[in-house]
Amino acid sequence: MSLLFMLDMIGTVAFAASGAWVAVRKEMDLFGVVALGMVTAIGGGTLRDLLLGDLPPFCLQNEIYFWVPAATALLVFVMHRHLPTLMQPLLYLDAIGLGTFVVIGVSKALLFDTGPFGAVLMGILTGTAGGVIRDILANEVPLILRQEIYASACVLGGILLVILTHLEVPEQLNLLLVAGSVILIRVLAIRYNWSLPKAPIQ
Amino acid sequence: MSLLFMLDMIGTVAFAASGAWVAVRKEMDLFGVVALGMVTAIGGGTLRDLLLGDLPPFCLQNEIYFWVPAATALLVFVMHRHLPTLMQPLLYLDAIGLGTFVVIGVSKALLFDTGPFGAVLMGILTGTAGGVIRDILANEVPLILRQEIYASACVLGGILLVILTHLEVPEQLNLLLVAGSVILIRVLAIRYNWSLPKAPIQ
Amino acid sequence: MSLLFMLDMIGTVAFAASGAWVAVRKEMDLFGVVALGMVTAIGGGTLRDLLLGDLPPFCLQNEIYFWVPAATALLVFVMHRHLPTLMQPLLYLDAIGLGTFVVIGVSKALLFDTGPFGAVLMGILTGTAGGVIRDILANEVPLILRQEIYASACVLGGILLVILTHLEVPEQLNLLLVAGSVILIRVLAIRYNWSLPKAPIQ
Repeated sequence: MSLLFMLDMIGTVAFAASGAWVAVRKEMDLFGVVALGMVTAIGGGTLRDLLLGDLPPFCLQNEIYFWVPAATALLVFVMHRHLPTLMQPLLYLDAIGLGTFVVIGVSKALLFDTGPFGAVLMGILTGTAGGVIRDILANEVPLILRQEIYASACVLGGILLVILTHLEVPEQLNLLLVAGSVILIRVLAIRYNWSLPKAPIQ
Repeated sequence: MSLLFMLDMIGTVAFAASGAWVAVRKEMDLFGVVALGMVTAIGGGTLRDLLLGDLPPFCLQNEIYFWVPAATALLVFVMHRHLPTLMQPLLYLDAIGLGTFVVIGVSKALLFDTGPFGAVLMGILTGTAGGVIRDILANEVPLILRQEIYASACVLGGILLVILTHLEVPEQLNLLLVAGSVILIRVLAIRYNWSLPKAPIQ
Repeated sequence: MSLLFMLDMIGTVAFAASGAWVAVRKEMDLFGVVALGMVTAIGGGTLRDLLLGDLPPFCLQNEIYFWVPAATALLVFVMHRHLPTLMQPLLYLDAIGLGTFVVIGVSKALLFDTGPFGAVLMGILTGTAGGVIRDILANEVPLILRQEIYASACVLGGILLVILTHLEVPEQLNLLLVAGSVILIRVLAIRYNWSLPKAPIQ
């Protein structure tokens, strides 16, 4: 079992937990909790595969990507009383997921011969679109459109990976370096409350 | 004209009416009423075909799936004053649609060689995604994420159909049995106000 | 550089500006402004290509469709103080985009052998789906479902183009005639505040 796959599973669990948790707070029923957990975990990669034309998408080809988020969401439903104390560690697992998903998205896009902007975009989508669909279903303005450094960590990581790939840095090194950078930026952003500027309205 | 196709048309009309009716209540204009009716009727099957990679989707291959919901929505727009008295019968036609759409979705997914979880999921999407898009467009938390037994009838029906297919029960019998079960569960849920548990928040 | 491509770019800029402007008013951050600008400009054509099965979609095949809306959105972010005075001209540029996008969508659908209803629908989607996604992300009921003559200009233009194509009117003439009609209807609708009827609720 490769390191990348392990990180991928950690991210899948963390993303599913964040989706299920939003559903619990929104007082959705058991079905809603599982649905929101699954969509948060696999929505980004699925949208990426739809756009690249790699159909059916990854989750329909390997059902572990259905079982793991479904089981995670069920666990959140049952254990939801204990979840608030787990929020802090979950935030760091979520950062691991973000870095890993970006790296997976960009490398897959480059395999499909997209241009550099498209590759970065596929990385951002893989990392963030699941959370965007979660927020749309919960009837809220998506967090990443207004929040601290989250999507921007993906942007930086994506650009870095496109550059390193063009420089023909060995692939394994590439992926670890970039995933690590995204995770680091995200963790620092959580610690120090970094955020992007907004356009001040008079 | 097969029985399945007749049930399919009944469901298409019922789903289109439910979408158009939401649009009327939200004070959308004529275009909005037709758009919401169409998206509710064909959104689920279209999303399923996108994910299975069967493109263009069913509705672009047989335009009756455009004409019937468009005509239904127009009728709702013109007759909306009489619709409240029709709500109860429409609820039962909607149940017929739900059962039929689930059966169509699961069998199509199995033809495309998805795994069992994927097949059940495609059934759920076919039956419910149109209503989810309707609610997103109407800027509401999707009904099926918080409501009584609706999506869960699809889950049970989907699982039953996957099992029966593996047992090689004759196909026609299969489809009727499962569509009938989903419709029955849904009708009982309406009658007796069944609902799924929520996670109680302290 | 063809006339159609020039009109396409004008529309792309106008649509991106409208998306970025909504994001600024919703107090999204820099990432949100660029994301909303891009999705508004390329969302409609991307959804059309997904449904026609022409993957990867146009924007992944020619990255100018990423760079132009991203640059436009950045400009809106920096210059947002001056934007209110530009709203009136932008409305007219938006009309040019609408007419052009409809024409592009319908002709592409006809190339993919859709039926007449499907072709008109692909035109409507190309012209309006980006704005719908923009409004969903901004957590509002999509403007075109409740607003004045906007989507209906696309409907009329789409139907006209399907008829002219069946009559084998020369293609260049066709496209200009229909784009011109949509733009004209839209401009008149802005001037005279035309709107579609709603179903009056008692």
